[in-house]
Amino acid sequence: MRAFDYEHRVTYAETDRMGFVYYANYLIYFEIGRTEYIRSSGMAYKDLEDMGYMLPVLEASCKYLKPARYDDVLTIRTTISEFKGIRLGFSYEILRDGIKLVEGTTDHAFVDTEGRPRKLSPEIQEKIKKALV
Amino acid sequence: MRAFDYEHRVTYAETDRMGFVYYANYLIYFEIGRTEYIRSSGMAYKDLEDMGYMLPVLEASCKYLKPARYDDVLTIRTTISEFKGIRLGFSYEILRDGIKLVEGTTDHAFVDTEGRPRKLSPEIQEKIKKALV
Amino acid sequence: MRAFDYEHRVTYAETDRMGFVYYANYLIYFEIGRTEYIRSSGMAYKDLEDMGYMLPVLEASCKYLKPARYDDVLTIRTTISEFKGIRLGFSYEILRDGIKLVEGTTDHAFVDTEGRPRKLSPEIQEKIKKALV
Amino acid sequence: MRAFDYEHRVTYAETDRMGFVYYANYLIYFEIGRTEYIRSSGMAYKDLEDMGYMLPVLEASCKYLKPARYDDVLTIRTTISEFKGIRLGFSYEILRDGIKLVEGTTDHAFVDTEGRPRKLSPEIQEKIKKALV
Repeated sequence: MRAFDYEHRVTYAETDRMGFVYYANYLIYFEIGRTEYIRSSGMAYKDLEDMGYMLPVLEASCKYLKPARYDDVLTIRTTISEFKGIRLGFSYEILRDGIKLVEGTTDHAFVDTEGRPRKLSPEIQEKIKKALV
Repeated sequence: MRAFDYEHRVTYAETDRMGFVYYANYLIYFEIGRTEYIRSSGMAYKDLEDMGYMLPVLEASCKYLKPARYDDVLTIRTTISEFKGIRLGFSYEILRDGIKLVEGTTDHAFVDTEGRPRKLSPEIQEKIKKALV
Repeated sequence: MRAFDYEHRVTYAETDRMGFVYYANYLIYFEIGRTEYIRSSGMAYKDLEDMGYMLPVLEASCKYLKPARYDDVLTIRTTISEFKGIRLGFSYEILRDGIKLVEGTTDHAFVDTEGRPRKLSPEIQEKIKKALV
Repeated sequence: MRAFDYEHRVTYAETDRMGFVYYANYLIYFEIGRTEYIRSSGMAYKDLEDMGYMLPVLEASCKYLKPARYDDVLTIRTTISEFKGIRLGFSYEILRDGIKLVEGTTDHAFVDTEGRPRKLSPEIQEKIKKALV
């Protein structure tokens, strides 16, 4: 599976009084990672929503190995770990200078605007599959 | 004008690596203050939105006198500073043990769901006016 | 194991354009839950930090069952799932009107201000153990 | 005075249930703007803190003209509006496709790690002044 890298610089807002990135903010980094991964397929996640596909998170997990600090330039490395039917799973690594600080996963399902499961059109299926290679 | 007090305890999430509450988070405290002020009128802001009234912020200002710290119990003191037609203005003080740490203002206008100015019904006007006394 | 309940009202700031609480914010709710749980032991987490004990998060997980919405009053239900040596584990449920919306866990280890493992004094051990009953 | 432009893409985390960027988050954009402006002087704000200079915010203001939306690419345009002694003032414009959405200001003072006013060394003065041209 292809990994997609995206850089993010830690803001003051994201730190806490321990001097590190607050633990919930890595889930925001994961959001940035999967958004840019999807965009790399030639179709923005926003376009999917505009077509009536929502992709809420069903589960998330995060393992904190080393702290990230203010002004660090982090690499958000995103991989698609599962893509079957309406299920889409991502795994993430947050790295600084090649050292892994955090790893995590999110699992999603495509639903319509009412929250009911919604199958992807073949065209969208194809685009996402191509982005995996 | 009546002042409305509401307590809030500072979370770790709200601090930054300087050890203080991050400056943008006071605007969240202001939101909590005006929301609870409006609720004290016997009608929640959410009810207003459900009736198609939105109350976006036009301007905000904030003066930082002393820092708030992790686990502080803060008093968010809210006053309505202006209520004329579709305009609604709030002023705020953030206090710890009676000492003012931060003061600020927000100005709003009632609009409909399309963002166009929307006059309040006489009934809602009345409720908000009563909340001022 | 004792469960500790704490109420939190969802702010506008915590919602996203899907109209629900943004998924990372539940980790902030978990922070509030464990902080108030620890406080119920008669000792604030802040006191622990003042004594040089830090309690960083090693792992977090979250399962999203139903969405929470703006202005909902949520119950954050916290239980200590593990307390052995320097390890402390919490599990959480986020409920609205008795219905579980979200569940999750966080695992922590006590460290000193340099990030090295630090054993708890017998006195603190005792306090936390009493809070479990 | 030189204006410094920096791009930022709006995340899901930054939106609220109105579908727009939550009003407090523009202050985070302002932080990003002034941080990158200072970095363009050849010295990161982090370096200043490492040398014992802190630059807390004394005042902030924000005027909301048009809403920014999810996935918008925004330009954060930062200008130094005042630099005299220990005072440093910034003004900001947030633009989308050349259209101004938000404008604002922040005022700061250089202090030491104890929060007392601290004069800048001539060398640092020089660097910041050069960044203004």
